[in-house]
Amino acid sequence: MNLQAETSHDKAPTPRRTRPTTGYALSLVVTGDAVDGAQISAAIAEIGAEVRSSAPIDGGLEVFVACSGMAQQSEVLEMLGNLSGVDSVCSSDTTFDLHVGGKIVVSPRTALVGPDELAMAYTPGVGRVSTHIAQEPSSVWRFTGRSNAVAVLSNGTAVLGLGDIGPEAAMPVMEGKAVLFKQFGGVDAYPVCVNAPTVEEVVAVGAAIAPTFGGINLEDIKAPECFEIEERLQEMLDIPIFHDDQHGTAIVVVAALLNAAKVIGRSMSELTVAIVGTGAAGVACAHLLAEIGVGDIIGVDSRGILDSSREGLHPSKQWFVDNGNKSDKSGGAREAIEGADVLIGLSGPGIIEPEWVASMGDDAIVFALANPVPEIMPELMPDNVAVVATGRSDYPNQINNVLAFPGVFRGLLDVRATNASMGVKRAAAEALAAMVARPTAERVIPGAFEDGVADIVARSVSAQARAEGLAREAITG
Amino acid sequence: MNLQAETSHDKAPTPRRTRPTTGYALSLVVTGDAVDGAQISAAIAEIGAEVRSSAPIDGGLEVFVACSGMAQQSEVLEMLGNLSGVDSVCSSDTTFDLHVGGKIVVSPRTALVGPDELAMAYTPGVGRVSTHIAQEPSSVWRFTGRSNAVAVLSNGTAVLGLGDIGPEAAMPVMEGKAVLFKQFGGVDAYPVCVNAPTVEEVVAVGAAIAPTFGGINLEDIKAPECFEIEERLQEMLDIPIFHDDQHGTAIVVVAALLNAAKVIGRSMSELTVAIVGTGAAGVACAHLLAEIGVGDIIGVDSRGILDSSREGLHPSKQWFVDNGNKSDKSGGAREAIEGADVLIGLSGPGIIEPEWVASMGDDAIVFALANPVPEIMPELMPDNVAVVATGRSDYPNQINNVLAFPGVFRGLLDVRATNASMGVKRAAAEALAAMVARPTAERVIPGAFEDGVADIVARSVSAQARAEGLAREAITG
Repeated sequence: MNLQAETSHDKAPTPRRTRPTTGYALSLVVTGDAVDGAQISAAIAEIGAEVRSSAPIDGGLEVFVACSGMAQQSEVLEMLGNLSGVDSVCSSDTTFDLHVGGKIVVSPRTALVGPDELAMAYTPGVGRVSTHIAQEPSSVWRFTGRSNAVAVLSNGTAVLGLGDIGPEAAMPVMEGKAVLFKQFGGVDAYPVCVNAPTVEEVVAVGAAIAPTFGGINLEDIKAPECFEIEERLQEMLDIPIFHDDQHGTAIVVVAALLNAAKVIGRSMSELTVAIVGTGAAGVACAHLLAEIGVGDIIGVDSRGILDSSREGLHPSKQWFVDNGNKSDKSGGAREAIEGADVLIGLSGPGIIEPEWVASMGDDAIVFALANPVPEIMPELMPDNVAVVATGRSDYPNQINNVLAFPGVFRGLLDVRATNASMGVKRAAAEALAAMVARPTAERVIPGAFEDGVADIVARSVSAQARAEGLAREAITG
Repeated sequence: MNLQAETSHDKAPTPRRTRPTTGYALSLVVTGDAVDGAQISAAIAEIGAEVRSSAPIDGGLEVFVACSGMAQQSEVLEMLGNLSGVDSVCSSDTTFDLHVGGKIVVSPRTALVGPDELAMAYTPGVGRVSTHIAQEPSSVWRFTGRSNAVAVLSNGTAVLGLGDIGPEAAMPVMEGKAVLFKQFGGVDAYPVCVNAPTVEEVVAVGAAIAPTFGGINLEDIKAPECFEIEERLQEMLDIPIFHDDQHGTAIVVVAALLNAAKVIGRSMSELTVAIVGTGAAGVACAHLLAEIGVGDIIGVDSRGILDSSREGLHPSKQWFVDNGNKSDKSGGAREAIEGADVLIGLSGPGIIEPEWVASMGDDAIVFALANPVPEIMPELMPDNVAVVATGRSDYPNQINNVLAFPGVFRGLLDVRATNASMGVKRAAAEALAAMVARPTAERVIPGAFEDGVADIVARSVSAQARAEGLAREAITG
């Protein structure tokens, strides 16, 4: 074990309890004759919640409290209600408050202050622009917002970890994605939540709306339907189709693995990777890992290792049998993990035992990406583990798709790309990895809010798209 | 002929030549040792173009010139190039400049400045909001942008007067519409230009995207397909479907007619209306005119009057035979117009002769709405005409859809309406008409930029939707 890897063992002990987050924050107004800010903050901290800000107001106190969950929200409210000196507690859930009315707006780039602007932005001026586009179709990229517009298309069949909750319930997530697209990539993304439960229906609506957009980000569509939807749309259309649950995750995972391999001083071709969970993300990770040349990939689904004895597998799973598991291992997750160099968990909370991880090779790399509760908590890692990543912001090495998709689409849109190829995804992963100049066990990937992430990914994506002949920028004005 | 009607004859003579508009504006930089601003302005005015602004710059002059068309743009450039003292003329077409990059942006309502906001707007916070919507579906109206979102849905088969130019070429128009929706109605409208040439395809995509929107504004879809598309979508969906080319026009036409009838002192039931042009707008006007109780409606299409001898008519045209033309008139536009009290032209430029209009009754009302060149120019109206309206901003009484659609959707969204009923359309027309306290021949309709138009229309629409039980506001939080 090398020196860099050692550092992963030095990290401060992390509480196993879920940490407070503003995702479960409360905005409180506490009133009473004897409201004491210090006392209240102390009482809240004792429960385990976190006061993020507080300010005295007339007759009381305003407090913003991050909680670990809804149970802790209730605990805080109950405790405050019983606190001596407190007359009343008004609370509102900050996350729901923030969502009232939705999270995005559509605005004119230029205000119409009078008839002169109207004549340019609408009739008669607009008719000339439409006529021009009809005559020179490629000019749509110049004279409309298509060149910066991405559809965030979902049928709501696999929303976060919530399952098939439908298009309406998917809306907050797609709006959130649109916010992230703008904030990190400058992309005008619009949520398109569709009542389209089947492959045929999603493909039909995706193909129909394509003229409006410069790219389509598929989101929260369940596997295995998502594979066929993406493939068919990309075949039909000349704009990039990118299923973020697959490729966003794969890009960040591969970037992190490139750096983790540096930390332990191994090359990709030496690594055997066990992927536990072969849904959308697992499949895409496997493809991109194969592209960068890892030694072997062993896939595990809910029935066990994908080996030659498995029959009737969906093509997305058969891939693991045909292209990985070179020694045709059998068994379950435990057997897949044994002797592997890298474990990538994309499955469910707490399903992996520390002993299984202990049976991996020395300097093992574990990406436990189930969210919010990983397959195995970082503090339970045995000593052979050199690098750990999770999906969480409260541990080092957060595998967060926001590191990928804004820059990927920024780069694709910048060159008016026709396709999000495997090469493009690889280029994104490599650019992301290269942002960490000196990887350590605690830092194999940049943080989501580090400056310039999307720009660097975008430049690499644009260059790769040009190199592969996927850029249409040259032919359009 | 009454006094008010007299005023229509007193109007200043209007040049027959198309007036300069910023829709054909040029931004010029004129350089040279002896550039003389006054001389240049005079020379431009002599051609008939209009200098809207000019400012001296180092070594020359910046000039913003409105032109009547592309021919005049060329004329201005050629003239300036030959003007003594002018070394160079750099020009750009202001309308195209304004369109570069498109006309709308999608932005977060709240910026994500760090992980705390991310935890609220995205995971883990957003998952709670999605879960809540899955459990209480009506809360989608509160916690997403659906409550203020309208799709401007077009397949590009009948764009302005340009015909079937396709979805890409339709984009500038739909973006312009989105700008108007925001500017006048505060509505977050998004252009959805679809590759969906058939009724089936538009219906499928409209139904699929419905969960994202609080209403669908159909736009620039050709007749007769537009009728079936609207009808089927409204049957399938619980959000209002409103084809603006039909109903936006009909609402403004009816509003203008309500006031024009006051000007000539006649009641609706006394009026016989000839509608020349029975496409989308003509059909919708007829329905709404019937709703407000006009005496008779005679429809004329390209083959002549819709009378009992016509066979195999599309249902949208058969309506005129079944519900109008009570004396079963035959012939063409000329015969339809003869003796009519009101002429509504929704066809093509210059197709109506002054003699035909002279054969109408006394105090005739003529709405010649072909754009930019009306069926008959206002200055050619014979003496029996009391009130004239056109689609143009450079004559009195502009019939402009922007008077209707922003307020209609504002009102529908405000009560989360399920349907844009006939009653709602009538209420919009009546509210619009009532904005003109004392109608005159020159003012039967408010101007597009008058304060409060959309608000007044919206309040009337909301009240009517409530009265008809189309408002879902009461059942949602």
